[in-house]
Formats: sequence, structure tokens, C-alpha cells
Amino acid sequence: MSTITAQGEKTLVLASGRAHPELAKEIAKELDIELLPTSAYDFANGEIYVRFEESVRGTDAFIIQAHPAPINEWLMEHLLMIDTMKRASAKRITVVAPFYPYARQDKKHRGREPISARLVSDLYKTAGADRLISVDLHTAQIQGFFDGPVDHLMAIPLLADYIRTRVDLDNVTVVSPDTGRVRVAEQWAERLGGAPLAFVHKSRDINVPNQAVAKQVVGQIEGRTCILIDDMIDTGGTIAGAVQVLKSGGAKDVIIAATHAVFSDPAARRLAESGAREVVVTNTLPIPPEKQFAQLTVLSIAPLIARAIREVFEDGSVTSLFDGRS
Amino acid sequence: MSTITAQGEKTLVLASGRAHPELAKEIAKELDIELLPTSAYDFANGEIYVRFEESVRGTDAFIIQAHPAPINEWLMEHLLMIDTMKRASAKRITVVAPFYPYARQDKKHRGREPISARLVSDLYKTAGADRLISVDLHTAQIQGFFDGPVDHLMAIPLLADYIRTRVDLDNVTVVSPDTGRVRVAEQWAERLGGAPLAFVHKSRDINVPNQAVAKQVVGQIEGRTCILIDDMIDTGGTIAGAVQVLKSGGAKDVIIAATHAVFSDPAARRLAESGAREVVVTNTLPIPPEKQFAQLTVLSIAPLIARAIREVFEDGSVTSLFDGRS
Amino acid sequence: MSTITAQGEKTLVLASGRAHPELAKEIAKELDIELLPTSAYDFANGEIYVRFEESVRGTDAFIIQAHPAPINEWLMEHLLMIDTMKRASAKRITVVAPFYPYARQDKKHRGREPISARLVSDLYKTAGADRLISVDLHTAQIQGFFDGPVDHLMAIPLLADYIRTRVDLDNVTVVSPDTGRVRVAEQWAERLGGAPLAFVHKSRDINVPNQAVAKQVVGQIEGRTCILIDDMIDTGGTIAGAVQVLKSGGAKDVIIAATHAVFSDPAARRLAESGAREVVVTNTLPIPPEKQFAQLTVLSIAPLIARAIREVFEDGSVTSLFDGRS
Amino acid sequence: MSTITAQGEKTLVLASGRAHPELAKEIAKELDIELLPTSAYDFANGEIYVRFEESVRGTDAFIIQAHPAPINEWLMEHLLMIDTMKRASAKRITVVAPFYPYARQDKKHRGREPISARLVSDLYKTAGADRLISVDLHTAQIQGFFDGPVDHLMAIPLLADYIRTRVDLDNVTVVSPDTGRVRVAEQWAERLGGAPLAFVHKSRDINVPNQAVAKQVVGQIEGRTCILIDDMIDTGGTIAGAVQVLKSGGAKDVIIAATHAVFSDPAARRLAESGAREVVVTNTLPIPPEKQFAQLTVLSIAPLIARAIREVFEDGSVTSLFDGRS
Amino acid sequence: MSTITAQGEKTLVLASGRAHPELAKEIAKELDIELLPTSAYDFANGEIYVRFEESVRGTDAFIIQAHPAPINEWLMEHLLMIDTMKRASAKRITVVAPFYPYARQDKKHRGREPISARLVSDLYKTAGADRLISVDLHTAQIQGFFDGPVDHLMAIPLLADYIRTRVDLDNVTVVSPDTGRVRVAEQWAERLGGAPLAFVHKSRDINVPNQAVAKQVVGQIEGRTCILIDDMIDTGGTIAGAVQVLKSGGAKDVIIAATHAVFSDPAARRLAESGAREVVVTNTLPIPPEKQFAQLTVLSIAPLIARAIREVFEDGSVTSLFDGRS
Amino acid sequence: MSTITAQGEKTLVLASGRAHPELAKEIAKELDIELLPTSAYDFANGEIYVRFEESVRGTDAFIIQAHPAPINEWLMEHLLMIDTMKRASAKRITVVAPFYPYARQDKKHRGREPISARLVSDLYKTAGADRLISVDLHTAQIQGFFDGPVDHLMAIPLLADYIRTRVDLDNVTVVSPDTGRVRVAEQWAERLGGAPLAFVHKSRDINVPNQAVAKQVVGQIEGRTCILIDDMIDTGGTIAGAVQVLKSGGAKDVIIAATHAVFSDPAARRLAESGAREVVVTNTLPIPPEKQFAQLTVLSIAPLIARAIREVFEDGSVTSLFDGRS
Repeated sequence: MSTITAQGEKTLVLASGRAHPELAKEIAKELDIELLPTSAYDFANGEIYVRFEESVRGTDAFIIQAHPAPINEWLMEHLLMIDTMKRASAKRITVVAPFYPYARQDKKHRGREPISARLVSDLYKTAGADRLISVDLHTAQIQGFFDGPVDHLMAIPLLADYIRTRVDLDNVTVVSPDTGRVRVAEQWAERLGGAPLAFVHKSRDINVPNQAVAKQVVGQIEGRTCILIDDMIDTGGTIAGAVQVLKSGGAKDVIIAATHAVFSDPAARRLAESGAREVVVTNTLPIPPEKQFAQLTVLSIAPLIARAIREVFEDGSVTSLFDGRS
Repeated sequence: MSTITAQGEKTLVLASGRAHPELAKEIAKELDIELLPTSAYDFANGEIYVRFEESVRGTDAFIIQAHPAPINEWLMEHLLMIDTMKRASAKRITVVAPFYPYARQDKKHRGREPISARLVSDLYKTAGADRLISVDLHTAQIQGFFDGPVDHLMAIPLLADYIRTRVDLDNVTVVSPDTGRVRVAEQWAERLGGAPLAFVHKSRDINVPNQAVAKQVVGQIEGRTCILIDDMIDTGGTIAGAVQVLKSGGAKDVIIAATHAVFSDPAARRLAESGAREVVVTNTLPIPPEKQFAQLTVLSIAPLIARAIREVFEDGSVTSLFDGRS
Repeated sequence: MSTITAQGEKTLVLASGRAHPELAKEIAKELDIELLPTSAYDFANGEIYVRFEESVRGTDAFIIQAHPAPINEWLMEHLLMIDTMKRASAKRITVVAPFYPYARQDKKHRGREPISARLVSDLYKTAGADRLISVDLHTAQIQGFFDGPVDHLMAIPLLADYIRTRVDLDNVTVVSPDTGRVRVAEQWAERLGGAPLAFVHKSRDINVPNQAVAKQVVGQIEGRTCILIDDMIDTGGTIAGAVQVLKSGGAKDVIIAATHAVFSDPAARRLAESGAREVVVTNTLPIPPEKQFAQLTVLSIAPLIARAIREVFEDGSVTSLFDGRS
Repeated sequence: MSTITAQGEKTLVLASGRAHPELAKEIAKELDIELLPTSAYDFANGEIYVRFEESVRGTDAFIIQAHPAPINEWLMEHLLMIDTMKRASAKRITVVAPFYPYARQDKKHRGREPISARLVSDLYKTAGADRLISVDLHTAQIQGFFDGPVDHLMAIPLLADYIRTRVDLDNVTVVSPDTGRVRVAEQWAERLGGAPLAFVHKSRDINVPNQAVAKQVVGQIEGRTCILIDDMIDTGGTIAGAVQVLKSGGAKDVIIAATHAVFSDPAARRLAESGAREVVVTNTLPIPPEKQFAQLTVLSIAPLIARAIREVFEDGSVTSLFDGRS
Repeated sequence: MSTITAQGEKTLVLASGRAHPELAKEIAKELDIELLPTSAYDFANGEIYVRFEESVRGTDAFIIQAHPAPINEWLMEHLLMIDTMKRASAKRITVVAPFYPYARQDKKHRGREPISARLVSDLYKTAGADRLISVDLHTAQIQGFFDGPVDHLMAIPLLADYIRTRVDLDNVTVVSPDTGRVRVAEQWAERLGGAPLAFVHKSRDINVPNQAVAKQVVGQIEGRTCILIDDMIDTGGTIAGAVQVLKSGGAKDVIIAATHAVFSDPAARRLAESGAREVVVTNTLPIPPEKQFAQLTVLSIAPLIARAIREVFEDGSVTSLFDGRS
Repeated sequence: MSTITAQGEKTLVLASGRAHPELAKEIAKELDIELLPTSAYDFANGEIYVRFEESVRGTDAFIIQAHPAPINEWLMEHLLMIDTMKRASAKRITVVAPFYPYARQDKKHRGREPISARLVSDLYKTAGADRLISVDLHTAQIQGFFDGPVDHLMAIPLLADYIRTRVDLDNVTVVSPDTGRVRVAEQWAERLGGAPLAFVHKSRDINVPNQAVAKQVVGQIEGRTCILIDDMIDTGGTIAGAVQVLKSGGAKDVIIAATHAVFSDPAARRLAESGAREVVVTNTLPIPPEKQFAQLTVLSIAPLIARAIREVFEDGSVTSLFDGRS
């Protein structure tokens, strides 16, 4: 007999970086497993050390990391965990990055800039990633940056289902805070039953001759509840400015909805004081207590990610998780 | 003496596929060179044969191909020319694809689709391309699909400078034909001195209760000259529909401006009968006589591409060719 | 518990491009499965769209495409299907290309030509192919072009077993239509019990002084049934010319046998009028009714390919399918 | 039904090159399997031919080769076997190289040298290796040369357990033959219960003014049993010289322990005549009868390698095999 | 005329990250050029933005970055600058990393660890680096981690030439602070005229029966000036401990010499209070005022790096810069 | 000023392995340079060491090696030289392998064999080769195995020009020793003015019923001078057998012409005693005195290779060196 034959099995492990352990634990709980025991700490000079404390040979490994500030630390920790997993003989490595790092630098806006979002994909690939799971990429084209399967989950259904419970759908307008997200606003509008659209941008007011360029709303928002949407809220400047323009333009009230709560200072203060009735986000990024405020509602993304991980592991169809995106 | 030393020189050659020789010749004329003598023909079963008739060893080679229908033929010819150039020892190969093939499939719109635009980049790279020059990519993120330098030229300045001579700038609105190109419309608006924006999309009319969803204009266009912009016009259905909506909405008149005149049937007829005052495009794609019509104006892209080629060859700054894109 | 363990399974799917659905269906029937439901169509400008309508995650996927004219269309569709399969998380992708595209350009015949057959292998690899199955490659070295396992099936046993039933084996000569396929003719000869060989080529007739170069038969064919073999018949010029030379040289009659019926115009007419008693081919390529003629016999390659697919899936030994090739 | 589903299984095969069949057979026996039937021979001009005589499709293949002189022959045979395995569709290929070739050239000692140990890793990878198993790499950094998982087994526990039975642990000093292996000596010392360390190197004797540089022992060895350790013994010059220095320095006696018995001439004679009480090595390399001598003890590495292979196949934890290395 | 021919030229540019601009400026001054004008700043969420303000097309680009804490920030900035340079069409990109990041994790010390130093090489390569220049790598094998030319500069000559002026060479012993750097101590010893060696490590004192394991010096240091060497000083614990052991062992005095002054807290205090007469380092890393102390001497590495850059640019022989390393 | 600009130059160096220094020196002499001073020797255990003794930074490097037995030694030395050249920063590396190693294993003749000729190409590429120059590849398809430019030189013109001076062209037949080289024989025939062709193979003699299979000549050779051609002569068995068959068949006399004189034992004796009038070969491989014999004529390939190297260096057209191959 020149061979040994054994039954094939597949084993899922879920490892987490240190950026947002609460989310990882929530996902693990949804999956009814424990996180892979992992050592990770910083050396005195800032170098990161990681080690998995149990064998991962032959596993179908998922490595989750959130990417709040300091984002480069967490990205590097993510890469080191992937390298470790590869050298420890995991069979397949799926990177879970709910908030994709450097997503906004997805093209050269001017000459001699990096395309950082592509670089990030290449770094993940180089470290050993076979697959990628992310939520609401800044632009869907980032899927094409990664050389392998990408499961692009969307939080719009989660957010919209919540919004539905908070508004009169006959009187809402979906508003994009700038010209770049009108398409996403349209997806929201469809999800909310074909609601009208509007967007905010700088231009001359054609009704007032000789006026200088200023922020204008294009679309009808007077007397209506505006759902002001975005993929992420960073410092909150644009979005708070948009609330003001909408209010000035006669909007009844404004609800802000965004997937990624980056909340760099002074976002929390700005949003709290913006005049918006409610700010709805998910927990793809950790929101420390000092960044929380009265109008804030945080929905958990964990069930969505857990479901995706399970379907990837079981070779099910993740496409169904996209049903809100036409 | 164990070495031979020679003066380093660099030599530019420009080769062209068969899809649009007129454009290649125009570019060559701008550069004051001749196209590289090239044999290219189809075998009986459709396989393409190419051969360069002069040595290209050590050259800085530019290979231009347009990509009208049958687009797969021209793409394959392009790939074969790149492979030939690589195996013939060209020092550096720059692909010139004024209209990037499969640009619209730049993401998975639904599960189990290809990301064809990324595939095209990878095919170019595999064949041997070091660099890429293209004009007005459908989305700028496609730059990030190619693993190497991309010079992304823009035709908006060329088109806008022409439009300026045709309209009263105080009375124009720039209109996006759908929600996906509002950002580009904004770039146009800036170039035209901060003109107002509008866009067309399907939604309920909030002024008419219980009405079904239909095409609406968001933004003010009544009595104004609308510059209806797009990156490409394929069958012309969307754009012609938009003209109608704008006219119905009280627009004074409509000028269509687009970079890439794909003009699949029945685009020419539709555009001619659309009611638009003028249709302005460039010659990134060939426009055969039977697809031309009275209102059509074709601007030549050759000077822009020639200038980019020269600057790439001379290590000058192509960034200056982007000045219209903020 | 930090892991989930599941039973490993493997699942075969078979997808087909649009070039030759009959063959794909025959193979599927042999395997007792249905083809993977697939959408594929052309956009107005010739760009191809593909989508798989069922999940293919984790599958052992086989993607078959035939490559008749327009060959670049079908090749590009094949590449797009592979890219789709890769991005949809198939576990392993086997390309089935019964007639390998561009097989004849397997070397540089002169300087500054492509090596198109290598390029095709690299394109398949880049798109995501892990393995390749093909039938009767123009030269066996093409196996070495692909960076991965290649199962090179041979149709000679199929064709020869049929021929045996049609001739007196004691009176046959196997004839190569040119100098390049004498080795293949020898394989045929062995399969037919050590039959003698001949070939046709241009040279001076040494028996006639001062005569110009013309087509000659080298080898004895007078009074014998000639089996004129080739891997493919394209326009049929060479093969029909060979029939004539054989007839003039006193051959009793001629049977043509080839694997790939490319049949570019005017092959069908030429073959029909060539004087050959019978033309035996397989259905690696579709043969539309207008290209069929009285003397044509088409053997199905489907059982051979189905058997190879099954053995690849079951990790059996495909080598046994090569038994006719010493 | 559009799929066929089968139970996943995994199958181990073990193939061996011709350099050291005894070791391969011992390992196979430990695993209770037979070696994969393999043809391998040299053509007249020295080209090597290999063929596996049974199907290896879908297997988890381990290919073992030892690397004595002529080392390039055995390395090339190893590469050819890997290429064969890859093209024959093995699912995963693990290279087993107990004595890693060219390990000593693991850096550029001077400019314009190769880094041969990295090249060897790249050659293995290019040929198709997914993983690597080796024993006592010359420097542990070589693990990082290979782009994939490396299982680095250590023979120190095996050797040290034997040494323990031969000495009074209270009276041993572990000695490095030069400055480069003091770290490894320390690992030995820990394994032997915190034994003291010493090393040999060239320097001035500070106790004798104006003396020229000569070999000195640094550390206390007088009256003690010295365990002189190294990873490999090639010609034995350094190690035999060290024995002499130790003896001159008053050592009670000397036991030499090394993993890899390269034993290039005149190593056997030198060691036999060195004055060492015993020379303990493993059989990672074949030791032909003419290179054996009275004081030589050869321990079998087969159980260690067999255990590693089994754990890799079963996705167990090979880390436990490293327990002697802190 | 089908070509344009121009004189080939090569142009050097030197860009610097933000970690240690003083060193970059010193190097630029040595080269008699200015640093490439560069924008680099952090976004609110920690993402880094970089842009070069002048064309770099066709240049021979050198990108220098130091890697103090926060090291992941500076590494990521370095990668982004390389990506930018690549996409901006630099002809060749040489990474200058005087202190190689993560050099200490150059192997798996235990199972399931990363090989971070290899990962860093791969990240540099992926971002677009063609070549690498570094100083005193933690282990020379790291050269082999990078897939391309590495110029490994050494600071020992610089440091040793300074030490020579501070000591009586007849009364020095070179001391390694642990067993891992005895080889490097030997290189120092050779450079200082064959000085004796010693090292510090934990073991039983063989002169005192039944004593527990403690730090011991192996080698003669009584009454001698000890040159305690290392490649880097991080928190200074090991090195300060070694000073104490040397002093206790009767050393006359101790001079510490190391290339890389990582100086994580509390290194400065520890070194200042260690009892060492002098601490000599280079400026491969920035040493902020609060980390400086009375006994500290900082030598500039800039002339060495500038010379290497110039020789790389001019195709001279960098090997000469290694002359101190036998 | 932020840049340094220098004149671009290019410098040719030619390095040689140890397999056939005479040929390398002849080529160097043709180029009027000296070989790059190189150290190369074997360690005791057979590992090869190489070092270049002069800087090769920025050079256009050509590395020549012949591949006689022991072929794996010379191949490995070749790879080590390429790795050295790459790490020493040569700008471009061209491998010169006049006799391509393992060329005969250019396909899988049966299942579970390597494709050694492809592996060799990949090994060269991995080591760092950018380009390849070879002479008379066993099959021209091997060009397609290398991922880069290949200059495939042909010796037929050299050999044929010599043959012309030795025969009456009106009475020659070009003979292939088996069915696999009839195409090459045809190229010879064209070069000799359209001479007739013949080949030798095993089959039944159709003129003698019931005879067993034996070697036969197909084609007319009676009374004619046969030019028996091949790409290489290894042990000479086939070719000597062919001489006998030709002589038995009434050939007037036989001249053997082949490019590569592998001459494994007992080739020299066989050829000397074969009855051939003359055996004409080139010196792509060294022919030691003991393998030379009276009828042997050796033509030098050095001028052809030197010319190719010069044209590659000067970006001239090597295609002209192929003029004999239509």
C-alpha cells in the first residue's frame, strides 16, 4: 500500500486583531464558537508581535480586524496575522476588514499620488490573503483591486429597515451630501419605496443673479424628512454642513445614516450639535464612550458578517446578502 | 578590457492595430513620425496574425488600438501586438487604449459576475504591457486595476472649450443623464465657471400624490441650455430619453457632450432625432460615415494623446494634461 | 470550542460558453448532470456579459468552450467565464478547450511575431485557470506553455478504431500532408498495425532532370488506400491538394482523418470535390449544416472528454486515455 | 441536478529521489506505507528522467531527497520530481530536504556573490513546492527564504538525549567550534541542564604579551567533558582542530555531536584520528561504509521526519517537535 | 522616419519620509542636491497622504525613511511613497531603510509566529521597490529575504575608527551581550587588531557547586576596557545588565557601541546610569533631545549612505563600503 | 536643484561558466573584449561557489554556459551565476545556452513525467534571466517556454554552406533519421536548392508480404549522396543505424550533419565506424580529444553567437541571423 487515506474535513477558525475585540466577540457568539486564542502585543519600539496559541494547520481561517485610528498599526497587525496564518499552514485565509483601510484614496486625484486602496489589496495578497470580506466599500470598484474573491456586504438593508420604523415613508427625501454619492442615495431611495432624491453641492444660485458660488441643495426637500446618507462619517464637517443647508432650505427634519462611524474629532460634537434628529451608524468601527452622544443609534453589523462567514465556510451563497443592492 | 561601452539612447516607436488607423496616423503626424510598418491580418478561422516589419529592439514602444465593435477582436489583436513587442525585445511597452475596453463592468453589480475591466488590465499586463494611457475612464478607479503607471487623460477641457464657444455660460445647466455621473457633471460645471447641476432619474413625483415612478429631473433646467454630459454614448437610449425629459421639463435647448462615441445601433438615429441641438464627441473611436448625422461635431483627440506620448517618452510631466480635473 | 468542523465534500459543476452548446450538452449527458445555468450575451458594442445563475462556491469547476470563428469572441467569453468563476470562489477551475486556440502560432516562424499559443496559456492562467484539458494539440509542446497540469487527450484511437472498420489494413499507407506531421502519421501507423508511411512535399523530382520544384509524394502509395491524416482541416487547401497528388500518384483511394474540423471556407466544397472517399472528423468544433457534405463522417468526442472530466474530478488516472500514444 | 457531489478524502503519498533510499524506506516504514513506485535514471549525457508509476492526482504528496555529493544532481532530480508531481495534479506538494542544499551560502559574505540558499528556495517554489520540511537549517533565517510554510525540525533533542546517557552532566561544557554557533551551543546547554559554554576562535592570548594570533578557547574547559557541537561536519577540519585545542587546554575528553554528516574527504580520517571519544551524528545524509569509523554513532532521523509528515498530513501540531528549542 | 531617437540620460532624485528629515537632509547635502519636494500628512483618522510635487518620470529614485516608533506609521508611509513613485513612472526605485523594520523577527522562534522581516521585504517589493539599501541588518540573512539587489552597508568601520581614538588597543576585550552576537564581536575584534572576545550569558558557575543559574561572563575581562557591542539598543535592559556583570567581573571600564539607537524607554536612563564610560551610536534613527545624555556620542551615518547612493546611481562598486567585514 | 543628471551609457559584460571556456573565449575574441574575471569552484561536498571579481552594476550582462555532462552541475552553476548577477545589480541579464538543457523532454511523452525543458526555462527566469539566446532548439516551441525574448539562432546555414563545398548538389538527398525531424530536413533541402527528402523509420515492407516490422527508408536514396541531418547526436545509435540502412538501401555515400555534438559514449566509436564519409558538427558543446575521430569536422559557432550578442547589445536586428530558416 503506497498511500494513506483519511477522511477530508474542514475546520473554521476565527482570529481577531486588537482593534475592536467587541465586534469579533459578537461575531464569534453569532457563530457559536470562541475566538482563536492569540497573543498580540507591542514591543517597546512599536513593533507588533503576534502568535496563535493553537494549531491552525489545514483550517479555513478568517482573520478580522477593524481599522480605526491608529489605522496603520491595525493594518500592520492584520498583515502580520495573515503572514502568521500562512506560515502556520492554514488552508485558506479570508481577510475580514469591515471598514476597508484607505478606501478613499481609490484613484489618483492628481498626478504623483498613490492609489492607496489598491496598495492595501496588494499588501493583503502578498501577506497571504486568499479572499476578502468587507462592508460598504467607498466605491464598489475596490472589489476589483483584490486579486481574488471579494464578498462585498452591504449595510443599507440593515440601516434602512431601522429607518423605516422611524419615518413616514411618504414624506422622505434621500439626500446625498455631495455629488459623489448620488448613486448610493438612489439605492437607498429604491429600498425606501422609490423616494425622491436630492444632493448638496457648491454652485451659483440661478435664481439670484451675480451671486457667488455657495452650497445649494438640488432637489426638493422643503417640508420633508431628509435621510442624509453616506458610507462613512469622518470629521463630520461635510455632513453637518449638509444638515444646515437642508434645514435652511426648509427640511422638516434630518436623519443621518452611515455605515462607518470613523468619528475623528470633532465629529461627535459636530453631529450632536448639527440639528439632526438622529444619527444611525453600525459598529464596523469601535465607538468609544467619549464619542457617543444622545442622538446616536448604533446597529450591530455582527449578524451580517457572521452570516457571510458561515456561508463562505459552507460554500453557500453570499449573494443573497446583497439583496438590497440592485 | 572586459567591457564594451556604448552611448545610451532611447528610441520611440508607435505601432497601431487595425481598428482605427486614422487616429493612429493623426497621432503619428502630430509626433512627426511614421507608424511602425506592421503586418496584421486574419486567418480564415478568425485567428489574427501580426508581425512588425522593422526591428524594435530596445525601443520605447507605444501600441495604440481603438476598441469599437467587434471589440474582442481588437482587444485580442492588441494583446498579440504587445506579446510580439515583448518577445521582440522592446525596452518598455506602453499600451494606448483611448477607450478602455469593458470599462463599464468595473465591479460586480450582482454576485457571480466577472470584473471585466480588471481582467482586461491583467490581460494587458500578462501580455507584456508596462504602462497604460487611456482617456476618460468610465470610473477613475480603473487606474488602480492596472499594476503599473497609468496616464489617465481627460477630454473634458477639449470638449468644454468647444462648448464655451457655443453657449451663453450664464444660462447653462450641466445635466447628468443618471445618478452615477453627477460627480463628472460637477467637474464640467466647474470648468464652465460654476454652472448649476441637475440629473435625471426614476422616482415618484412628490408634487403629484399616488403617481407611479417615472423619469424626473432633479435640479432647475427650465429655460436653460442644458449640457447633457456622459463619458460614452452606446446605443443612445438613456441619453435620448434624457433629452426628452429635459425638453418636457422646459429646457431651452440641449447640447450633448461625450468623449467616447460608441454609437451602437440605433444610436445615430436616436441622437439625430432626439431634439438635441448638437452632439459633441471625440474620435477615440472610429465613426463610420453611416453613423454620422447633421448635429454631430467630432473633435480630434489626437493632439492630446500625441502630447502625452511625447511627455512619457521625454519623461516630462503628463500631470499638466489633467489640469481640468480638480 | 474555537472551531467549527464540517465534513469535506467536493462538488463538480460544468459550465459552457456559447460557441458549441451541443457538445457541452452531450458531455453533460455523459456525466449525467445538467450544465450550470448561465447567462451570457453581447452588449450592443460587442462586449460580452456573463453570469452564473447558481452558487459555485467551493466547487470543482469545469468550463468548456469551443473555438470556431469568430475565435476571439469565444476566447474572450471563455476568459470572462473563468474570471467570474474565480471571483465567485470556485475551489479549482479546469479549462476545457477541445480545440486549443492559436495552436498553430506555437513558435516564432520569423522574427517579431507573437507566440500566440503561449499567450493564450498565459491569458487562461491570468484569468484564473488552474488546469487545462485539450484534445490533440497542434504540437504536444503546447502542454509546456501552461503553468499547471494539462490533460492532453487524443482522438487518434477514436478515429483509428473507426477507420479500421472501413479499410483493408494490409493495403493502407498513412500519409502526412506535409513534412511537419510525419511523426503523427507514424503514431497512426502504429495504431493501424505498423502500416507504411508517406508524406507530400515540394521538391524536385530526381527522376526528371531540370524539372522545377513541385509537389511530390515521398513513400509508396501506388494501388494503396491512403489514410491522409492531420490534426485540423482549416481551408482544406493543403489536404485537398494532397489528395490530388496521391491520386495522380496511383493511390487506390484516399480517406481523410482529422480531429478538428475548422472548415473555414471553402473547406467543405474543396473536401467534397477532392476525390477523397471519406472525410472523418470529430465534433471538437461545431459543424453547421451548410458545411456538411456527403462524404463527411463526424465522430463524437463527448465520451472521451466526459471520461477525462470524471477522472479529474475523482482523482483517477487520465493517463489511460492516452493509451494510443506510445 | 447541475452538480455531482462526492465525499472529500485526502491521500498521502511519499516519493523519494535516488540519493538516500534507505532513509526514505525507514520513513515509509515508520508511516506504514510503501514508497510511491518511481522510475528515475540518467540519460547518457547526464540528463535525469523521472516518472511516477501510479496516479498521484489529488494527493497530498511528500517528496524526499537527501543532498550528499554530487549535490547538484540530487537537487535537480528533486526539482524534476516536483515538476512531475505538479503536472500530474497532486493537490499539495511538500518538499522534504533533511539537509538543506547550499545552506551555508545564506548571505553575501562579499559583494558579487549569490545567495544560493535563497535561490534554492526559489527553485523549489518555481518547480511547484507548496511547503518545505527540513532539519536543523544552518541558520534559522532560511525559513524566511521560502515563500510558504516551513516545518523546521530539530535534531538536538534526539542527539542530546543520547549524549545524556554517555556523560556526567555535572562535568560537561558545551563548546562551539567557532563564534558563529555559540547561540546553538546555548540551546544545547539548556537542554543539558544549564551546562557552561565555551567557544574556540582565533585571537591573541592576553596572558602572553606580544604573542601572535592563534586558536584560543574562551570559557572554562579544563578537566571537563566537552560536547563539541555543530550543525554539520563537512571536511572536519574546523572540528578536528577544535578537539586539539580543547585537549591542549586540558579538557578531560571530547564528544562531537552534529546533525548532518556531510563527511567530505578527509573527514572520516580526521575525525577518527582527532582524539574525540565519540562522534554522534544522524542519518540525514547517507554515510557509506568507507566513511564509517570506530568512534562513530549514527542516530536515525526517520522517526522525527515520519512524525512531522504524519502531523502535516493530519493537520496536527508540528510545533511540539520543536520543544527542545526555546 | 518611423522613430524618434533621443539621448539617454539618468536622473537621481532623493525623497524622504517624515520620520527623520534631518538625516535625509544631511544625505542630500552630501550629495549636493535638494530633497524632492513632497507633501505628506495624516488625515484625521490616521490615514497618510503623500504626493510628490515635481515630476519623477524616468528617474532613478531613492526613497529614504527611518523607522523609529511609531514604526508602523513610518513603514506604511514608506510603502505609500514607493507606490506613488511607481505609479508616477520612476524608472528604478531604491528603498533606503537604514534601520530595517522588524529585523529581530527574522525567523519563527516558536510555531505560529510570523517571519515579519520577510513580510517587510515582500511588502516593499509589492509596493514597487527594485532595490534596497540598509545598514547593519540584525542578521545578514535578511539580504536574502528581498527579491532583488540589496546593498548592506556596515557601520562597524565608522564606529571602530572612533573607538580606536578612545582606548588603549592592547587592553581591550570585545564583549557580546549574549550568545547571539559573538560572530559580530569577532568582526569588531578583527577590526581592532585581533582583540580578545568575551560574552555574557546565563549558566551555572562551574566553580561554585550547586549554585543556581545566573549571568556569567565567558572570557577574560578583568582589568580590561570592554567594548560592549550590539547592532541595536532598544530598552537597554540587556546591555545595561551586561555592563553590571562586566563591572562585577572586574572590568576596568566599559564602552558601549551600537549602530541603531532605538532607545525605547527607559533606555536613556538605563544607559546613563549603567556605569558605562561612553555610549557610541549612529544616527540611523532620530534621537530626540530628551533621550540624549552625558555619555552619549552620536556619529553620522549620512556620509556612508550618501556614498552608497552615489555609487548605485553611477554603477560604481558599493562592495568597497564593506571592507571592514571580512 | 533636486536632481543629479548623468549621461546614460550602456556597458556589455560577458561572463562564462566552467563547462566550455574555449567557446566563451572565442566569442570574447570575436567581440574584442575579455571575459569578466570570475571565481568559480566546487566545495568539498559538491556545492558550487561563484563570484564576479569586478563590478557589474548597471551592465548589460551575457552569461554563457555550455551543457555537456555532468549537465546538472553546469546548469546549477549557470543559475548561481545568474543569481549573482541579479543581486549585483546588472541591468539586464541574457542567458546564452548554445545547447539548451533537457530540450528533448519538451512534452509529457506519457503521464506523470516532467516537462523538463519548461522547468529549465522557469529556473532561468526565477534566477533572474531577462532574455535567452540558444542555438537550434530541439523543437522551436521551446522558445515559448521562456517568459521573455528568445533569440533562436540557427546553425543550418553554417553547416549547409560547408556541406555545399563537399558534395554535388544535383545528387544529394536530405535524410531525416526518424519521423520527427522531416520538417528540419525540409529546411535543409531548401537551403541546398530544393533537394529531395527521405526519412528512416520502422514499418513493414509493403513489397514483402508477411514481413515483420523493420527499419525502412522512405524516399529515394539509391546512388545518391545522403545528407543525414539531426539537431544533436547523443550516443549515436539512431544515426549510425540510419547510415547502415541508407548504405544497405544503395546510397552512394553518407554525410552526417548535426549542430550539437553531445557524443555520449559510445558515440565517437559508433560514428567513426558507421561508414559515414564525414561527420560535421559545431562546437556548441566541448569535444574532448578522446571523442574526436578521423571523419569529424567541427565548425565554430562562436562568430554566430558573437554577432547575436553584439546585435542584442546594440539593439540591432538578430532576425537577419535566421535568414536560412524561411
